[in-house]
Order: sequence, then C-alpha cells, then structure tokens
Amino acid sequence: MDIFERLKAAAKAEWSSYVDHDFVRQMGAGTLAPPAFQTYLVQDYLFLIQFARAYALAIYKSRSLADMRAAQRGLSAILDVEMDLHVRLCGRWGLTPAAIEAAPEHLATIAYTRFVLDCGVSGDLLDLHVALAPCVIGYAEIGRRLAPDGVAALGDHPYRDWIGEYAGEVYQEIAAGARAHLAALAARSMTEQRFAELAALFAKASRLEADFWQMALNDVAAG
Amino acid sequence: MDIFERLKAAAKAEWSSYVDHDFVRQMGAGTLAPPAFQTYLVQDYLFLIQFARAYALAIYKSRSLADMRAAQRGLSAILDVEMDLHVRLCGRWGLTPAAIEAAPEHLATIAYTRFVLDCGVSGDLLDLHVALAPCVIGYAEIGRRLAPDGVAALGDHPYRDWIGEYAGEVYQEIAAGARAHLAALAARSMTEQRFAELAALFAKASRLEADFWQMALNDVAAG
Amino acid sequence: MDIFERLKAAAKAEWSSYVDHDFVRQMGAGTLAPPAFQTYLVQDYLFLIQFARAYALAIYKSRSLADMRAAQRGLSAILDVEMDLHVRLCGRWGLTPAAIEAAPEHLATIAYTRFVLDCGVSGDLLDLHVALAPCVIGYAEIGRRLAPDGVAALGDHPYRDWIGEYAGEVYQEIAAGARAHLAALAARSMTEQRFAELAALFAKASRLEADFWQMALNDVAAG
Amino acid sequence: MDIFERLKAAAKAEWSSYVDHDFVRQMGAGTLAPPAFQTYLVQDYLFLIQFARAYALAIYKSRSLADMRAAQRGLSAILDVEMDLHVRLCGRWGLTPAAIEAAPEHLATIAYTRFVLDCGVSGDLLDLHVALAPCVIGYAEIGRRLAPDGVAALGDHPYRDWIGEYAGEVYQEIAAGARAHLAALAARSMTEQRFAELAALFAKASRLEADFWQMALNDVAAG
Repeated sequence: MDIFERLKAAAKAEWSSYVDHDFVRQMGAGTLAPPAFQTYLVQDYLFLIQFARAYALAIYKSRSLADMRAAQRGLSAILDVEMDLHVRLCGRWGLTPAAIEAAPEHLATIAYTRFVLDCGVSGDLLDLHVALAPCVIGYAEIGRRLAPDGVAALGDHPYRDWIGEYAGEVYQEIAAGARAHLAALAARSMTEQRFAELAALFAKASRLEADFWQMALNDVAAG
Repeated sequence: MDIFERLKAAAKAEWSSYVDHDFVRQMGAGTLAPPAFQTYLVQDYLFLIQFARAYALAIYKSRSLADMRAAQRGLSAILDVEMDLHVRLCGRWGLTPAAIEAAPEHLATIAYTRFVLDCGVSGDLLDLHVALAPCVIGYAEIGRRLAPDGVAALGDHPYRDWIGEYAGEVYQEIAAGARAHLAALAARSMTEQRFAELAALFAKASRLEADFWQMALNDVAAG
Repeated sequence: MDIFERLKAAAKAEWSSYVDHDFVRQMGAGTLAPPAFQTYLVQDYLFLIQFARAYALAIYKSRSLADMRAAQRGLSAILDVEMDLHVRLCGRWGLTPAAIEAAPEHLATIAYTRFVLDCGVSGDLLDLHVALAPCVIGYAEIGRRLAPDGVAALGDHPYRDWIGEYAGEVYQEIAAGARAHLAALAARSMTEQRFAELAALFAKASRLEADFWQMALNDVAAG
Repeated sequence: MDIFERLKAAAKAEWSSYVDHDFVRQMGAGTLAPPAFQTYLVQDYLFLIQFARAYALAIYKSRSLADMRAAQRGLSAILDVEMDLHVRLCGRWGLTPAAIEAAPEHLATIAYTRFVLDCGVSGDLLDLHVALAPCVIGYAEIGRRLAPDGVAALGDHPYRDWIGEYAGEVYQEIAAGARAHLAALAARSMTEQRFAELAALFAKASRLEADFWQMALNDVAAG
C-alpha cells in the first residue's frame, strides 16, 4: 500500500465526500446544470493560477537540479497545458482568459488554494505534495470513474471534454508520476509519527475539494 | 485622510457588509443566539493562532530592530493577552483551551487566515498589514459602535465582555497604534499606482470578515 | 535616467569594484589563470542553481498570469539555456554536471545567493529584482566592455566563449528585458523614500559580486 | 547518542574547525587581540538580528500553540537578553546600539545568517534547527571548554564577560533546552534517509561558523 492509498484509507469519509460528491455524480450522469459547470470552470481557472504558484514554490524549495526540473515540468503542465482546456471550454460561452482572470474568487477557492500554499511554505515538500494530492491525483481517479468504459465510449456526453481530459492517457500519466513522486518523498522523509499529521492534512484538503464542488452547486441554487 | 480612511472609502460596500453585518447588529441588540456566538468564539480562537503566525511573519520580514520589536509586541498582544479573553469566555461553557485548539477550522476561518498569510509571504509588509487591517483596526471600530455610551453604560448586556474588550481603552490604543503603523508603512512604500491593488486586497479581506460572521449564523441555522 | 542608472550612480564605488574587478580585467586581457576561471565557472554553476530558485520565487510571488509567465521564461533561460554554457565549458576539463553540482559552495557563493533569496522572500518583487540586477544586467555590461568591437572581433581570445555568450545578442536582449522589467516594477512600487533602501541593497549585492570574483582569484593564489 | 552527538560525529572535521578555531584558543588563552574581539562582537550583533528573524520564522512555521510559545521564548532570549551582553560590552568602547546596527555586514556574517534563514524557509523546522545548532548549542560547549573550572575561577580573565555568559547556568540551560527540542524534532520527523542530508547541512553550518571566527582574525591582520 503506497502512501496515497494509506492517506485515502485514513481519511475515508473526507475522501468519499469529495470523489462521490453530488457535483461529480451529476456530471457523470450528464444532469449537471450548465451554469454550475460554468461557475466551477471559472473558479477552477483561478484555482490553477494559485496551483501554478504552488509548483513554483516546489521549484524554490528543491535542493537538486533533478527536483527543480521535475517541478518545472509540473508548472508547465498547468500553465502551458491544463489551462488551455479551461480557456477552450470557457471560450464556448464567450468568456476570454482576461475575463476569467478578473472574476472574483469564491470563498471555497480562496480557502483551498491558500491552504495548500500555506502548507507548502510552512512545511516541507512532502507537506506541499500531500496537500496537492487530492487535486492532482484525485482528478485522475474521478476521470476514470466517470469514463468506466474509456474515453471513446463517452459518445456525445455533455461533459465529454472535461471527463476526457482527466480520464485520458496524458493526464493519467501525469497523475501516476505525481503519485510515484509522492511515494518517493514519503520514503525519504516520512516517519510513522508524522503520518497522522499528514493524514489530517490530506483529510482537510479533501474536505476543501468537496467544498469546492459544493460552492458551484450552491452558486446556481442561489443565483 | 489617512490610508485607512482611503481604503474604507474605496471598499465601501465590502466594508459595510462587514461592520454592519447581521451578526454584529444582533450582538449589539443582545439578540444574537448564544450558540452562534460560541461558534464564532471558537473559530476566532483558531483564527488568532494563524494571526499570531502573521505577526511572526512581520518580525521575520522586518529590516530593523525597531520594526522587529514593534511586531514582537503585536505577537505578544495576541498570544499573551487577546487569547485570554477567549479562553475565559469559552471556559464558561466548559471548553478548555486544548478542546478549542482541536476544533476543526470552518471554511471561512481557513479562507481569511490563509489569505492574509499568503498576502504577507508573497507581498511586502504593507500588503500584510493592509490584509490584517479589517480585523485589527475594524474590531476597534465595531467595539466603539456597539458601546456608543462607553463600556460602563453596557450594564448587564449579554455580550458585555466581548464588546467591553474591543471598546475598551487598551484595545482602542492597540488599534490606534496599528493604524499609525499602517500610515507609516504607506508613507514609506505606497505609490499611487499601488493604491488600487491595496484597495482590492482590503476589499477582499473585508468580504472574508463578513463571511466569517455569516459562517457563525449559518452554523446555528444548520445545526 | 531609469532606475538601473540611478542605482549605479548611487552605488558608484561598489559598482566599480565589481565591473572593473581584476578578475574581469585579466579575463579581458586574456591573462586570467585558467584555474581561476575554472574555480569561477564551477561556483557560478552552483550560483545559477540558486538563481533558478530566485526566479521560481518570482513566479510564486506574481499576482497575474502575465507576471508568472515572464518569470517562467527567466527560469527557463537559466535552467534550459545559461547552464548549458557552463556544462559545455566545464566538459572541456572533464567535469560532468553531476561533479559540478556536488562541488562544495564557497563562502562568497553562499553569501551572494542566499542574500538574494532572503531579499526576495522578506521583501517584494522589486527588492528581489534589484538584488538580481548586478548579476543579470551587470553581466551584459561586462560582456559588452570585454568585446568592444563585437563578438566576431574576439578572434581566438582564450575566454571567447564566455565573453561571446554575454556580449552576444541573445544575452543582451535578456538583459535589456530584465532592465525594462525592473523599470516597470519601480514605476509601480518605488517611492522616493524607498530609493535609499534599494540603493543600499544594490550596493551590497554589487559588493557580493566583487567578492565572488575575488574568491576565484584567492582560491588560485592559495591553491 | 542523541541527534546532536550524531551530527557532531558525522561532521567531525568541520566541527573541530569551529570549536577549536584559533580565535577560540586565543580567547581562552586571553591572548586574542582586542580589535579582533571587537570586530567579532559587532558582527555577532548583526548576526543576532538575523537569528531573531530565524526564531520568528520558527514561530510562523509552528503548528501548535505550544510550539509557537517555545519559539517565542527563543526569540525573546535573543532580543531581550543576549543582545544586552553585546550592547554592554560594545558600550565600553563607546559604541552605541544604533552605531552597531549601522555597521556593514561582513561576507562571513551574510553567508552564515542567510544560509540559516534559507534552510529554514526552504526546509522544515528540523532543517532550521539543525542549521541553528552549531551556534545555539555550540556556544554552550565552547563556553564550558573555556571555563573548565567554572565561571568563578576565571578571575580577571580579559574575556571573562563573554566566557562567563556562555559558560553560565542561564545560557547552559537555554542550550540544553535547544538540544532537547532538536531531539524531539528528530524523533518526530527524521528518517534515516534524511540523516545524511542533515549532517551535510550541519557540516556546512559549522564551517560557516569557523569562517565567522576567521573573519575577525583576518580583519585585524588586514587592518
């Protein structure tokens, strides 16, 4: 059982509240209201800006060129690749990147992103990557669940682009790499005494991810 | 008009949403449900732990002994004085400091505290103190509003302890000192081009304060 | 007079001690002892690792995607381009990148690099870029001085590769971009009250650059 | 063997170069030139300003009130106690605190202090305290060595004040506390894989301490 499995097992309730969230189920069933998805996508773009900062922090905190270059690739995956999906999808509703960047951050967006950054500044690289894991590795798990028969079988699913992105091979490999990196960091600097703290951090981050989905549902209910 | 007045004027709507919030009005009228106050107080204790970290950050970022010692006094005001009020009040409901420290942080608590810390790490001392201002200086303004005829006139007001703390002379002087310090920092490093950014930061922090009050009301409505 | 000119004028003695250093003169005259150059180059490689961390810090501290992407290019210029010159030149003496990375850092290397990083963490982006300027922009000035008739006229100068790199168009444009960026940061957040502090910081960084050259000369004298 | 003993054993040469340095021997023998001591003391004062920042960083990085309060005491030991010795001794030569604070930092002072701060920001609390250990715990060891028969037996030793400070009970207890804290941090978060890195960090910090003594001797030789 690698550290990611152990963390999920230790934070079972929080993890389920995130990966089995209504937002995810509705997206999978294709019944999610488009405005909820749009709210989510705009906030997720703001979220990625902060996550890019978290990867920059990982470069800064690295102690070898190899670690720096690995984190540099993670940064580039966000700034040069992942954000493109958002820009493309948002473009369909007439939203420009500048308009998205200028949107106000929701409470849930501020909470999760700044929490991750604070874990990263105040802790070490392992703390930072444990806080990032629900997002980076969790999205691959969610993508796979929502495309149980593969991306091709999604047909004209209304959320085909999003599901296809995270269920697709490119992202699955990014997540597998992140998971192996997390295991390597744990092998290097995780004592058993520290595990309880890391599990609490992982549970908190998972709950903040669930709050992020909920924010998109609430926003529409309230709107 | 000092910078604090300018910031309030530039963020009028957000500032009102905070200092005129229902939670504040109900506390002033003495009609606030005790469980809402208790939720608030526990979260505010967790909030102060993070704020103490923000003052430690201010010491770390200082470039002269005088600045370090000023921030050291701010740190001590939180750790050695302000938290005592919370411990005393929570003690009435049988809550120990250890129990409060172990309470889970609400979304609104995480959002505001980590936002302030992130402003402080990623910006300079002026950014940090602008982000702290709604709390440090705002509480003095709220305290004064809720005790228009002075602390002695509060009689047996159910929230007399809280209002008296922030309306009282000791806290009013702390806030006046913080305001003068903010003005000095602005004189030193605020260009007019920067003002718009600082006002946006102040507006965001004020909105996060309003969300913090709202969290306490929601928690009771939901409970 | 842009801010870079003003900083040089305010730190005239320290700036001269750096750009007119014996090491530079001897390199220009082609009389620099090869072991001094080799010591310098190995330390400069270690130096660039830390400077890459400083650019990662600039990404982390950015508040817009545009700023993040600009700093990302700076990071890439170091990790993906500038270090190659060092690897190529060191390779001529049989030194592998791994061997260079494992070399112990000299006192002067530790002092300048950690000073810059500390300026960047404890101050704002302007502080960080002022601390970087003697290196980033200064090397372009030194390159030009040592190749007054252009790179082609260097003939079989023993330090042709190094001089050509920094006198060459690619680097000159990087430095011009850094200088324009510094001017933009100053326009945004430099008050006159702050200039004296920035000039002191620039003077200190220039002196640390001079100490860096001196370290290479001393090392050979002692060896 | 606690972690401090293990670190010393792993960095034997660097540790000896520090605690058996000529500066220390000459101070013990009472033959140290007063100007060397004065240079040292002024630089050590500048050093303590940065060390106070390192303790503020430890408060900021703490995750419990207990840890915050422990680091707050460390900060106070520097700002409110240790600096007094320097101010008192420097006062004998007519140097005011303001004059000392305005003295330029030597290369060795910049190198050690910014190295420690960088270890602290980029690593975790254990990295920070390992980097601080040669200073905090090492001075107690040096003090005891220079007063083998106790402080009272120092008679009219020319460096009686300095030796007495660090050999005295108050400082010995501070150092014993720091050592116990280091052991607790190691128990919590040191894997065996990490030990080699920590030993390298400790060796580097010890060498930087030796460079610090050497700077004071060189300064006089050059003066």
